[in-house]
Amino acid sequence: MSTIEMIEAAAERLNGHIRKTPILSSPFLDKLASRRVLVKPECLQHTGSFKFRGAWSAISALKEAERQRGVIAYSSGNHAQGVAMAASKHGISSVIVMPSDAPQLKIENTRALGAEVVLYDRANEKREEIGEAIAAERGLTLIRPYDEPLVIAGQGTTGLEIAGQAADLGITQADVLVCCGGGGLTSGIALALEKHAPNLRARPCEPEGFDDVKRSLASGRIEKNNAASGNICDAILTPQPGDITFPILNRLCGPGLSVTEEEALRAMALAFLRLKIVLEPGGAVALASALFRGDQIEGDDVIVVASGGNVDPAVFSRALEFLT
Amino acid sequence: MSTIEMIEAAAERLNGHIRKTPILSSPFLDKLASRRVLVKPECLQHTGSFKFRGAWSAISALKEAERQRGVIAYSSGNHAQGVAMAASKHGISSVIVMPSDAPQLKIENTRALGAEVVLYDRANEKREEIGEAIAAERGLTLIRPYDEPLVIAGQGTTGLEIAGQAADLGITQADVLVCCGGGGLTSGIALALEKHAPNLRARPCEPEGFDDVKRSLASGRIEKNNAASGNICDAILTPQPGDITFPILNRLCGPGLSVTEEEALRAMALAFLRLKIVLEPGGAVALASALFRGDQIEGDDVIVVASGGNVDPAVFSRALEFLT
Repeated sequence: MSTIEMIEAAAERLNGHIRKTPILSSPFLDKLASRRVLVKPECLQHTGSFKFRGAWSAISALKEAERQRGVIAYSSGNHAQGVAMAASKHGISSVIVMPSDAPQLKIENTRALGAEVVLYDRANEKREEIGEAIAAERGLTLIRPYDEPLVIAGQGTTGLEIAGQAADLGITQADVLVCCGGGGLTSGIALALEKHAPNLRARPCEPEGFDDVKRSLASGRIEKNNAASGNICDAILTPQPGDITFPILNRLCGPGLSVTEEEALRAMALAFLRLKIVLEPGGAVALASALFRGDQIEGDDVIVVASGGNVDPAVFSRALEFLT
Repeated sequence: MSTIEMIEAAAERLNGHIRKTPILSSPFLDKLASRRVLVKPECLQHTGSFKFRGAWSAISALKEAERQRGVIAYSSGNHAQGVAMAASKHGISSVIVMPSDAPQLKIENTRALGAEVVLYDRANEKREEIGEAIAAERGLTLIRPYDEPLVIAGQGTTGLEIAGQAADLGITQADVLVCCGGGGLTSGIALALEKHAPNLRARPCEPEGFDDVKRSLASGRIEKNNAASGNICDAILTPQPGDITFPILNRLCGPGLSVTEEEALRAMALAFLRLKIVLEPGGAVALASALFRGDQIEGDDVIVVASGGNVDPAVFSRALEFLT
């Protein structure tokens, strides 16, 4: 179980170690969306995504002896970088299990952030088996990407900040759109808002065709995606909502939203032009929902969590072509 | 004269109306620079540059009757947008005199921010004559881009924030690199640091070939640039330091730094990759100086003011090519 008390405790552990990201806006986006659009750019967080929050929360909560043995994670993306940097800043070792065909830059970055990268052959090996063998041998603690209460608590600190920032802006009622993969960020934010801003409503945003959370919320039970890959929003393609995250999402969140790949790219281009921030496709689906699904949103204001900005230059340039 | 009291008064008028921009960093940039690099992204300020601070400072200080008659500015760039938005948020009218060959997007943006745009023919008309005629006819107040004490005071609030943020990070001694055109931002920051962080030293950064401030600081008197245009860093190409800004710069600033166009573009690419922010070439010269002129910088930490992000997609894509 993740609870508001766990989020508040995580906020204390994260204090001074994470960035409190600001709230950005632009009159041009407001006009496009026909309401005020307030963007929380977690792309500006350490390692370029909110994932550092959850990683820090989990690692900082370990007992000292356990922590000193080190941690392990499976990820080729934002969670990998978050865990590597959080471990390094704690002065402990981390092992990240990555597919050998992951982009060279991501492998190099994860190493440069202090992790030992263990590569596996995606076709012939299972990362869980490799990871469990290493973890058992060295006594490492596994940091799961989302279905882990301490990780959810860390991501939930984003929601505490939103509650405070919305109050400062005089906003007491609004939809809070969140880019959603396994649901760690969305469920954490929903728990924080439940207590600290009960009329702000978290709503998961996903790519069309990978809208497992939206469909699960509609049916009231966990639904799966048909495909595991094949969408530009790689950071948020997960097979299904988590066993821990889904009950929270189901209890607290408003209906899900979904956008096309082109809409995610257009939102990246508008974030470049109007907010001067770099978003990756998966980190732009909430902004895309605010801009292109306004008919499904309620209220004069909408809050958007822009969750990450780790994008290849070529993909970014492709997004910028929508501006010409 | 601009004084610290004027900056502190401007900070009170700006409170609640500007964004307090955060401090960003990346271990990758630290490694490249061989010291800790702390970046203050004024590209995230309203209208995409620090110029909004000075515009708000000047307009908010006008007497009510004077303000109600409206303001006027000459600019095709960041100052235009800053004045237009600050005027609009004060509920007053603004006239921006722009060359008729300015990029259509900039003209449209300035209009969309609420200004009346008056176009002039750069070859056959003088903007000052046109502006003065309109100002006299309507009783408008001219907001100068940098050689104006109230504007310098507004830009100086950036320095107050830097002093506080550096203290929070435990930094008492460092070079503060500032992208420098006419010197409004640099002189304002220097005045703020003089009182609030006397061992932080402001240093102007410019494009090679347009390093009038650097040469003026070296000679102790105002030096001019040979050319008026012909560099990608358009936002900071000014003919010479201002009559009001230069004495401040000369008294308080460390030696100037200059970088090539390619170095500015490379810094933009690294800001994209490592900080997830969008910089324009003129807004990236301070970061470029931190990364590529490290031998001319003192101390374990360097603070960089990234002053703006209003860049055409094509130029940005050109910068990203340095990553491939």
